[in-house]
Amino acid sequence: MATEAPATHDVVVIGAGSTGENVADYAHQGGLSVALVEQALVGGDCSYWACMPSKALLRPPEALAGARAVDGARQAAQGELEVGAVLRRRDSFAAHWDDGGQARWVNGIGVELVRGEGRLAGERRVEVSLPAGGTRTLVARAAVAICTGSEPALPPVPGLAEARPWTTKEATSAQAVPRRLAILGGGVAGCEMATAWSALGVSEVTVVEQEATLLPGYEAEAGRRLEEALEKRGIVVRTATRVEEVSGGGGRGPVTLVLAGESGPVELEADQLLVATGRKARTTGLGLESVGMEPGSWLEVDDSCLVEALPGGWLYAAGDVNHRALLTHMGKYQARICGDAIAARARGEDVSPAPWSPYSATADHWAIPQVVFSDPEVGAVGLTEAEARGRGLTVAAVEYELGQVAGAALYADGYSGWAKMVVDTEREVVVGATFVGPGVAEMVHAATVAVVGEVPLSRLWHAVPAYPTISEVWLRLLEAWRHRT
Amino acid sequence: MATEAPATHDVVVIGAGSTGENVADYAHQGGLSVALVEQALVGGDCSYWACMPSKALLRPPEALAGARAVDGARQAAQGELEVGAVLRRRDSFAAHWDDGGQARWVNGIGVELVRGEGRLAGERRVEVSLPAGGTRTLVARAAVAICTGSEPALPPVPGLAEARPWTTKEATSAQAVPRRLAILGGGVAGCEMATAWSALGVSEVTVVEQEATLLPGYEAEAGRRLEEALEKRGIVVRTATRVEEVSGGGGRGPVTLVLAGESGPVELEADQLLVATGRKARTTGLGLESVGMEPGSWLEVDDSCLVEALPGGWLYAAGDVNHRALLTHMGKYQARICGDAIAARARGEDVSPAPWSPYSATADHWAIPQVVFSDPEVGAVGLTEAEARGRGLTVAAVEYELGQVAGAALYADGYSGWAKMVVDTEREVVVGATFVGPGVAEMVHAATVAVVGEVPLSRLWHAVPAYPTISEVWLRLLEAWRHRT
Repeated sequence: MATEAPATHDVVVIGAGSTGENVADYAHQGGLSVALVEQALVGGDCSYWACMPSKALLRPPEALAGARAVDGARQAAQGELEVGAVLRRRDSFAAHWDDGGQARWVNGIGVELVRGEGRLAGERRVEVSLPAGGTRTLVARAAVAICTGSEPALPPVPGLAEARPWTTKEATSAQAVPRRLAILGGGVAGCEMATAWSALGVSEVTVVEQEATLLPGYEAEAGRRLEEALEKRGIVVRTATRVEEVSGGGGRGPVTLVLAGESGPVELEADQLLVATGRKARTTGLGLESVGMEPGSWLEVDDSCLVEALPGGWLYAAGDVNHRALLTHMGKYQARICGDAIAARARGEDVSPAPWSPYSATADHWAIPQVVFSDPEVGAVGLTEAEARGRGLTVAAVEYELGQVAGAALYADGYSGWAKMVVDTEREVVVGATFVGPGVAEMVHAATVAVVGEVPLSRLWHAVPAYPTISEVWLRLLEAWRHRT
Repeated sequence: MATEAPATHDVVVIGAGSTGENVADYAHQGGLSVALVEQALVGGDCSYWACMPSKALLRPPEALAGARAVDGARQAAQGELEVGAVLRRRDSFAAHWDDGGQARWVNGIGVELVRGEGRLAGERRVEVSLPAGGTRTLVARAAVAICTGSEPALPPVPGLAEARPWTTKEATSAQAVPRRLAILGGGVAGCEMATAWSALGVSEVTVVEQEATLLPGYEAEAGRRLEEALEKRGIVVRTATRVEEVSGGGGRGPVTLVLAGESGPVELEADQLLVATGRKARTTGLGLESVGMEPGSWLEVDDSCLVEALPGGWLYAAGDVNHRALLTHMGKYQARICGDAIAARARGEDVSPAPWSPYSATADHWAIPQVVFSDPEVGAVGLTEAEARGRGLTVAAVEYELGQVAGAALYADGYSGWAKMVVDTEREVVVGATFVGPGVAEMVHAATVAVVGEVPLSRLWHAVPAYPTISEVWLRLLEAWRHRT
């Protein structure tokens, strides 16, 4: 096995998912030489086993439901969703799990792509086990950035691991439709996959969630509305329910779950089990012990994504692996901040840690947007009312039935939806907003701009929504605010 | 004919369209007694002959096109749009041209609805010709607000009036589909009606626009993109073309237009002609002469909607009639400002004219949003690059192909769209934005919040768009801004 001589770069990034790609890109834009190490597919989970394939599975049924929701169009859209075409389109959006295009992009921006398994080997050193065997040592003059992300975690339920369940990876890349699908976890991934596979022909979908509502962490009403909608489509939702035991599965036929709910234990049989209950840090085998850190743990960072626990200011962690916000777009946001901060520090510049400075991922604390591409969609940004109170803010909230907005009624017959705005009453700014309903995905960004911009309500009063769009709900929420007392 | 004794209110509003309704509502919320005078349908053009029925005609084909744009759903949506159902749905959204519901709403909020033709009869006096004959005089202690709106204007083309063309009123309320439709005017209404009626089965649609591009007043590229899209669907678009003469029509068979373009005169025959070239003030027969003003003209107002030309500060004009922004949502915005200003002044409060104060319709100058519900949709807010330069601002702009955004590619196969952001380089704030593409309607409000909130680009950098939404174009525009040199 050949062992190459150490190569020196300004920056070495471990993990070429969307976060690592952006750290590399931004640091390189800042004038630094960068090596980007990837052991699997360049592009990461988002491209192949998460956002892209899941949204690709969800969009065709959503578009069809959109037509069927409008009289006149409904009659023209009575054919069957062509599942094979949906799966092929999904394959295409997942680039057929071939990362050639992304690898070319990395090389095209002037970053050196190093294929292999990278691990820290002491300060500023990364050792890469090469695919063909042998190792290569990379030395980073300025910084090493860990962008290895997270991976699905199985809860410690007896029999669960042996059942070899789907994780989101298999659920987004499956090539066949099971007859009965049981989903553990009613969070974002669970609800999206329930929506998708139900539409794609799974005849029995059951979602099991241990919290009281779907989408824990969101406004509870959003979870309740989604539950109601899923159940209307025949999906069974069991909230406040834990799985005690799993048997079967693992290639040996159906899987059986023993559920413990309020009314005692119940058995649930399914042909396929999907576990979407949470994720863990991808930090084992990363050589963290070589710098005195603990493998397997999330990497705590400051707002510039610097791992503060280590002296010398050379180790960064961006994306899921720092556990600030497990979302592609937030990982990329951190990556932009982090890549810029690394470059600025390498130039000897002062990197201000002030909130909202170019080198501070402040939105992680205040303005994390997320869209659940379920049907109905759920979009939210900022703090829920409960979170805001938990942080000691003085807040008040107003809500509105989205179906009462003309633009929503026009969008779909019998439109059902809901919006909530959480306001910091001291500063009179929006600190959170949630929208539930068909077509709300693109409505979140207005709220994000309002929250991030700290635009006072008195000024938002002048931000007129175009008529008749669903965004007119902003006027209704502001009017509700005016009338609250 | 009976003539009732004068009745006194704090405020008399002439015209119960959406603007008048809101002036009345807001003034009444401010503690004032209000009479609202309407000679036709309560709710006005928007409800019966503009926004609502036009959007109702456009949504079914849009929803169907949405399904057909996505492989897998496309195969399920190959039926025919059911035109009868679309027209009936439209009738329903136009409340079957019955204003009972809106009249009840007016009475329900504590405003007195006076049916009849109102006109000024000197200072603070409104004379109403009652439908059953006779008149009633209303005296306004605090203010009279004119909210009579605008009406379609025919350009002075020989033979045009005799051809008795459709205006937007007939085009939005038609019960039958003509075979050939010629549309004069390629502005918002013309483009929307071309989109709608083409989808509803008109076999030959021609749009004639005298300016060089469709949608004059928008970014020229938006008009060009829309033109290309309309032509792909078989709609003939003739820009830079004037109509010299019209013959026929008027119930006497087809209408013939003589068009003068760059390549000499051409004849165009159609079964129906729609004129959508502009609107004029509804201020004739309003008694303006009784207070020394000229009938037929637009009513110039200050930012609180006060008609400054008149002494005494008692006459207001809100909505189309003041010619600031001929859009339902801007009329309603002015109405809120105006109703509040009237109430505040009646309480003896100081009404600050400062920009963005509660009593200043400042958005009229800086942040008028509009969505053209054509296919593709066009959404814009604020200033075009040319407008901004015309106002003496130092601006620069960046553009982006919307189809390159992952969320757009997922939304529709072969998604084609475009976005432009205009930035005031001195203040580093967005002063205008334009989006073209399927599904962009709800994306405008984020830009409106950014423009109205004067959120600096350095802060917008932290407003992360959720992945994979089409709103991610914000990131691309900001990156383009960063890379421009």
